Amino acid sequence: MSAPANFNGQLPVIDPDDAVMLLIDHQSGLFQTVNDMPMTALRRHAGALASIATLAGIPVITTASVPQGPNGPLIPEIHANAPHAKYVARRGEINAWHNPEFVKAVKETGRKTLIIAGTITSVCMAFPAISAIAEGYKVFVVIDASGTYSKMAEEITLARVVQAGAVPMDTAAVASEIQKTWHRDDAEKWAEIYTQIFPEYRLLIESYQPTFSK
Amino acid sequence: MSAPANFNGQLPVIDPDDAVMLLIDHQSGLFQTVNDMPMTALRRHAGALASIATLAGIPVITTASVPQGPNGPLIPEIHANAPHAKYVARRGEINAWHNPEFVKAVKETGRKTLIIAGTITSVCMAFPAISAIAEGYKVFVVIDASGTYSKMAEEITLARVVQAGAVPMDTAAVASEIQKTWHRDDAEKWAEIYTQIFPEYRLLIESYQPTFSK
Amino acid sequence: MSAPANFNGQLPVIDPDDAVMLLIDHQSGLFQTVNDMPMTALRRHAGALASIATLAGIPVITTASVPQGPNGPLIPEIHANAPHAKYVARRGEINAWHNPEFVKAVKETGRKTLIIAGTITSVCMAFPAISAIAEGYKVFVVIDASGTYSKMAEEITLARVVQAGAVPMDTAAVASEIQKTWHRDDAEKWAEIYTQIFPEYRLLIESYQPTFSK
Amino acid sequence: MSAPANFNGQLPVIDPDDAVMLLIDHQSGLFQTVNDMPMTALRRHAGALASIATLAGIPVITTASVPQGPNGPLIPEIHANAPHAKYVARRGEINAWHNPEFVKAVKETGRKTLIIAGTITSVCMAFPAISAIAEGYKVFVVIDASGTYSKMAEEITLARVVQAGAVPMDTAAVASEIQKTWHRDDAEKWAEIYTQIFPEYRLLIESYQPTFSK
Amino acid sequence: MSAPANFNGQLPVIDPDDAVMLLIDHQSGLFQTVNDMPMTALRRHAGALASIATLAGIPVITTASVPQGPNGPLIPEIHANAPHAKYVARRGEINAWHNPEFVKAVKETGRKTLIIAGTITSVCMAFPAISAIAEGYKVFVVIDASGTYSKMAEEITLARVVQAGAVPMDTAAVASEIQKTWHRDDAEKWAEIYTQIFPEYRLLIESYQPTFSK
Amino acid sequence: MSAPANFNGQLPVIDPDDAVMLLIDHQSGLFQTVNDMPMTALRRHAGALASIATLAGIPVITTASVPQGPNGPLIPEIHANAPHAKYVARRGEINAWHNPEFVKAVKETGRKTLIIAGTITSVCMAFPAISAIAEGYKVFVVIDASGTYSKMAEEITLARVVQAGAVPMDTAAVASEIQKTWHRDDAEKWAEIYTQIFPEYRLLIESYQPTFSK
Amino acid sequence: MSAPANFNGQLPVIDPDDAVMLLIDHQSGLFQTVNDMPMTALRRHAGALASIATLAGIPVITTASVPQGPNGPLIPEIHANAPHAKYVARRGEINAWHNPEFVKAVKETGRKTLIIAGTITSVCMAFPAISAIAEGYKVFVVIDASGTYSKMAEEITLARVVQAGAVPMDTAAVASEIQKTWHRDDAEKWAEIYTQIFPEYRLLIESYQPTFSK
Amino acid sequence: MSAPANFNGQLPVIDPDDAVMLLIDHQSGLFQTVNDMPMTALRRHAGALASIATLAGIPVITTASVPQGPNGPLIPEIHANAPHAKYVARRGEINAWHNPEFVKAVKETGRKTLIIAGTITSVCMAFPAISAIAEGYKVFVVIDASGTYSKMAEEITLARVVQAGAVPMDTAAVASEIQKTWHRDDAEKWAEIYTQIFPEYRLLIESYQPTFSK
Repeated sequence: MSAPANFNGQLPVIDPDDAVMLLIDHQSGLFQTVNDMPMTALRRHAGALASIATLAGIPVITTASVPQGPNGPLIPEIHANAPHAKYVARRGEINAWHNPEFVKAVKETGRKTLIIAGTITSVCMAFPAISAIAEGYKVFVVIDASGTYSKMAEEITLARVVQAGAVPMDTAAVASEIQKTWHRDDAEKWAEIYTQIFPEYRLLIESYQPTFSK
Repeated sequence: MSAPANFNGQLPVIDPDDAVMLLIDHQSGLFQTVNDMPMTALRRHAGALASIATLAGIPVITTASVPQGPNGPLIPEIHANAPHAKYVARRGEINAWHNPEFVKAVKETGRKTLIIAGTITSVCMAFPAISAIAEGYKVFVVIDASGTYSKMAEEITLARVVQAGAVPMDTAAVASEIQKTWHRDDAEKWAEIYTQIFPEYRLLIESYQPTFSK
Repeated sequence: MSAPANFNGQLPVIDPDDAVMLLIDHQSGLFQTVNDMPMTALRRHAGALASIATLAGIPVITTASVPQGPNGPLIPEIHANAPHAKYVARRGEINAWHNPEFVKAVKETGRKTLIIAGTITSVCMAFPAISAIAEGYKVFVVIDASGTYSKMAEEITLARVVQAGAVPMDTAAVASEIQKTWHRDDAEKWAEIYTQIFPEYRLLIESYQPTFSK
Repeated sequence: MSAPANFNGQLPVIDPDDAVMLLIDHQSGLFQTVNDMPMTALRRHAGALASIATLAGIPVITTASVPQGPNGPLIPEIHANAPHAKYVARRGEINAWHNPEFVKAVKETGRKTLIIAGTITSVCMAFPAISAIAEGYKVFVVIDASGTYSKMAEEITLARVVQAGAVPMDTAAVASEIQKTWHRDDAEKWAEIYTQIFPEYRLLIESYQPTFSK
Repeated sequence: MSAPANFNGQLPVIDPDDAVMLLIDHQSGLFQTVNDMPMTALRRHAGALASIATLAGIPVITTASVPQGPNGPLIPEIHANAPHAKYVARRGEINAWHNPEFVKAVKETGRKTLIIAGTITSVCMAFPAISAIAEGYKVFVVIDASGTYSKMAEEITLARVVQAGAVPMDTAAVASEIQKTWHRDDAEKWAEIYTQIFPEYRLLIESYQPTFSK
Repeated sequence: MSAPANFNGQLPVIDPDDAVMLLIDHQSGLFQTVNDMPMTALRRHAGALASIATLAGIPVITTASVPQGPNGPLIPEIHANAPHAKYVARRGEINAWHNPEFVKAVKETGRKTLIIAGTITSVCMAFPAISAIAEGYKVFVVIDASGTYSKMAEEITLARVVQAGAVPMDTAAVASEIQKTWHRDDAEKWAEIYTQIFPEYRLLIESYQPTFSK
Repeated sequence: MSAPANFNGQLPVIDPDDAVMLLIDHQSGLFQTVNDMPMTALRRHAGALASIATLAGIPVITTASVPQGPNGPLIPEIHANAPHAKYVARRGEINAWHNPEFVKAVKETGRKTLIIAGTITSVCMAFPAISAIAEGYKVFVVIDASGTYSKMAEEITLARVVQAGAVPMDTAAVASEIQKTWHRDDAEKWAEIYTQIFPEYRLLIESYQPTFSK
Repeated sequence: MSAPANFNGQLPVIDPDDAVMLLIDHQSGLFQTVNDMPMTALRRHAGALASIATLAGIPVITTASVPQGPNGPLIPEIHANAPHAKYVARRGEINAWHNPEFVKAVKETGRKTLIIAGTITSVCMAFPAISAIAEGYKVFVVIDASGTYSKMAEEITLARVVQAGAVPMDTAAVASEIQKTWHRDDAEKWAEIYTQIFPEYRLLIESYQPTFSK
């Protein structure tokens, strides 16, 4: 495979009208095990994805792995930023795609493009991605809105999902590929999202529209 | 000097009732030049200092270096978190202590202990600290609520201000030395401050008091 | 090749019922030459693989390279965690697949899926992996339960084995892909394995079930 | 795809007589968000590309994203080093290839090989590269004359554009592949370009032709 | 001060017969906030200190900060390795030295040399150290058996406690300064301790006394 | 391509009887520009390759780029370790494959497998590798016996040559793939080579055969 | 000593009217051995010091160590930026202070404050600094306008010169301590100097006074 | 103390005619535990110290800690480079200064200045240094010819020995402070020593006196 799977000659870019966003296991306990990127950046990126879906009208499905135990509950900003998200409880399945209700929720959207992020990357993001590709979905994996236990684990997983045919994305690419143009009414809300992805942007905006002490 | 200056046998710790906080040149443009720590951490720490002063009733004096130009305006959370802060405009002086109104503002508080943070550390924090020590103040410098252009510059400045007799502090030590005990009515507000200083603490609190999906 | 080799349309995931685990040259001397990851992490991961095999009933074959010399003996936890492992002595062959008894031991299991880890990665893991792919095996290589002499050597080897058709895995992915669900009687033993892979998990469990000083 | 796209058996190297250089969004504000490489190195590399194009007679097309706002104006050395460059204003489109005048400018050159650099890499470089590949162009992407917000984002983007069929290049490879030989009249100008790419080279030249204090 | 305080011309080394070990706030939750060293190394070092005290007959006093909340319980190996340790509960005081029972426990030992480690370093280790110096104790601070939220915070704290007159120690120096000679009956137990401090030592021992596959 | 090129179903491993080693532009000046690995390691690895070729009877061809100028002369250990190496002078061509005498020297060996290392990697190693693949050679590129101006440049070049069909190798893999077995008369000479590749091995040998102070 | 030496109660800051700047052995060959900071930053900082001296009318004395040999000639920007600098040739002495003409040149200025930078830091900067302190000079050492062979060597040297009584400075602190105020006619020239010290400042200026494509 | 101890107003520099060099526990096993610097650099530096002593006629005393066990024998280049070195066996004492024969060997030289390096730094170098200072010796500690188990351990030890009054040195400073001038007959042998300390120097010499392929 190794080329983007299931595109059949189409451009390997996100079509927001065909996309569903899957945010998997972004839980407060699991976040304590993340070592491949600053946890605060991961948290900002995951929250940004939820906001992007809301702005673009993309369905969101969330799920958590044993949230009553050490893994902890979902971080609150996921559902805060995407109030339309649907939460699916699992019954112990590690691969969310093994949970029939989760797959059913995906299928009910009628869409065939998946944007997937999950913690830990090697497992919660990679397993459903590989499963969905095998069932014909176009899969975009957001590596830097997912977190894992070492930089090495992240590099291995990147190689594995690309080999399997997933398109690797960073959070900024997801935002821009969906936004498409600054010539739209909600441009300011998109600018706000970029301050979540690279916070230096907030300084640039503050310098541009100074509000104090000039 | 090299030992803490001006303590004359007293414990070299912060006495909140004798302290003034000086937050110098935390400006959006200058923050773009910070390379010794993640800018987002610097921003959180500087904001936390302002909140600490508010909680503890410590006077705050702010100032900015040529905020109309490339240095940019003060980041808004300083005055947002410390509404009681007094802003003193400068007339080009690089060392805030060279500005008579700034020194006057310090003197009017009648206090002799200074908690100083500034960007860039080597200049905006170090110069007033050295000047104030020479005039008999007890000076605590908050290195990680200050930012500078390289890790090496930070290490050099740490050595210089310690040599001059300042007491080096990190933001957490400032918070805890002032808070003193969890056995106080505003304990929850202090917990909130620690989530600004080390964000993993927020995950611990969220796991401890889960609000979603359990 | 570059896509997973020998899967012929099947999902490129581990089938525990078809798998053999090959743990090659995890020796105390060779571990002294490992520089691409903390040696303690490598040691925990290699030990975890052995435990995983035991829990899942997967055959294990071990071997060592000139253990009487500077390479040193196998680290003891391999056979301690996998008492059912079969040790095959080599006669100087660097590529374990060049040793007829080693290949015979693999063939006698009747299985066609290999999970391979070895130190040093570039040689002891990569050579048998490439050889086995050429003979029709499905090969999963566990990069972070293998160690090598530099980060660059690890990155080169990852590229080489992916090019050759091996599926790159991290240790957590191996554990989860085999465990499949938390809804099983030995769940606690699997939790124990994750504390070997990312030790922060142990803290989470300890905080969740405190046993002292509360 | 994953192999170089649109070469049809030709060597995957740059043919300067068929090439157009696209320098996209190298703006002073966006440069403040670059964290995957030293900004000064990025600036030297982008400037070097412009000089290469001038020396080799390669057409250059530049564009900027909302230069009136926080993104800031183009850095001046792009047009200073390539006075023949054509600037195309955009109307809010994030992907330069979505701007009809930009594509028209490319087509008017009659060339089918693109050398693309852009900031931020994940968006301004990657999006037009993927679009152009789909329209049959041979695309070379200059990763280290592009900058993005994290090392992880750069690694993800490298994987994505290679998957899409672009040929990844560093700035030195672009220079040398176009220069071809030192046996040419403008050799000294090429040497000057390498001092922009790896500044140690300037020290070697200075030591070789000492002009002071020997 | 800045020279070792309270030694009055004596060698600034640990006298085990005059020493008390204070292990402060090594709690599972606080360990999640440690970023200045690998948490696993911190855990090994703290455990090693407890073992050292046991071997050398040094009294140990432990305490925890609000162990019922997010800070979590003490890690179990502290009391496991030092069964003779005395635990003192606090009533919210951040500086353990502010708790009268804690100071009373120290005084009851009749000893005047303190070996202090604590998490987080900047607060739980530094505050009691500075307080105790002011009351005439000789204080040794074990920086790498303490953990804090950033490398910068650790460097600042090192400078502060040295300025205050504490003697900075690493865990190996504590072990060796107390052990003094290999010519003692419990030498093997000390060797075991060094495998906790630098795990490569375990490999050397395993190679020296091979037990498998030779 | 992206799979190993020109193997036509054969194992993608080095056949020493069909191999030629090309060591390109390992010059003292160019080594000053290497930043992707310690220059001393690069130097050891390049020297080790020359020794490997000598031990295995593999022809070696060397060349240098403008050695009279700032690039400097070849480092002496190349020809010292491989006295049978043939040096080919170039006439300014940057890509050694563009020099007819260099290609002639390769063809005269009658061999079709190339082991290539060169400094700088992106140019001196990559260009001949890509050219030779296009002419039907099997090409192994030794990334860590080549050096370039940045880690990013090395990562880009790794991606480019793999995309072009070269097999990426580290120096240890080259040694072991050619040595094949320790059961040979010159085993000690091979052990010596590994001490050049990972110097910790020398310590192991010294500990195993102590010659002093035991 | 350890406190700033020879200040006798005066503020330990630079008095430009009493200062001489000593720029020692900033040579093209020695710069190739610098590993404690990016060589390009070192070069910018050393050049900035020369410019500062010119702006402030501070005498500059330069010297070089065996410039006819591998150490190479002085980098040209030192004398280009400080045309008034006096060059003193040495006769093999490693410590410039051992050369009578060098010391004579210092004494002829009649000034007693020295600002010293040199490559390599441990030797060319540290030796004269320690010698001059012993003769009663106030010495400021500019650590980041000096370069040495490892980060560890830099840290050791910082500790040594502070112990000896030198005041450690970074380049920005030198600039600002001498400039004192922005309220001066040559303010723009000082701004230019800061772009040499932290190049991000150049981006801020460019964004503030855009000259292209707005 | 904290200022250089026992100098009594003399310059804190090495007087080779009063110096003894102590090289302690540079053993092949202990070198496997070194993590604060590349082991190869440590090995080169330790060997360089031995050569310096030989060139300058400085007595050398070596010793080893339990060389029959896992610590391993002394690395051979110590005595190879300093054939005049005297080896003193210890009887289990960890602090070499606790061994009466070791101290006797020092006293028999009649010299009062010690140059000490040892592995591991925190113990084998620091303990004798602190003991010797207390007995009136001038002590120079060579931090980067000593190695320890973590960067943090090295930083702690640097702070401890400086606090105790030792003068911190890097290997280059030791060489230059003893060599004093290039105007001596054995200059070439000193140049050779610098190639051991910073290997880039060897490249510069090779470029300056090219012997091949020009």
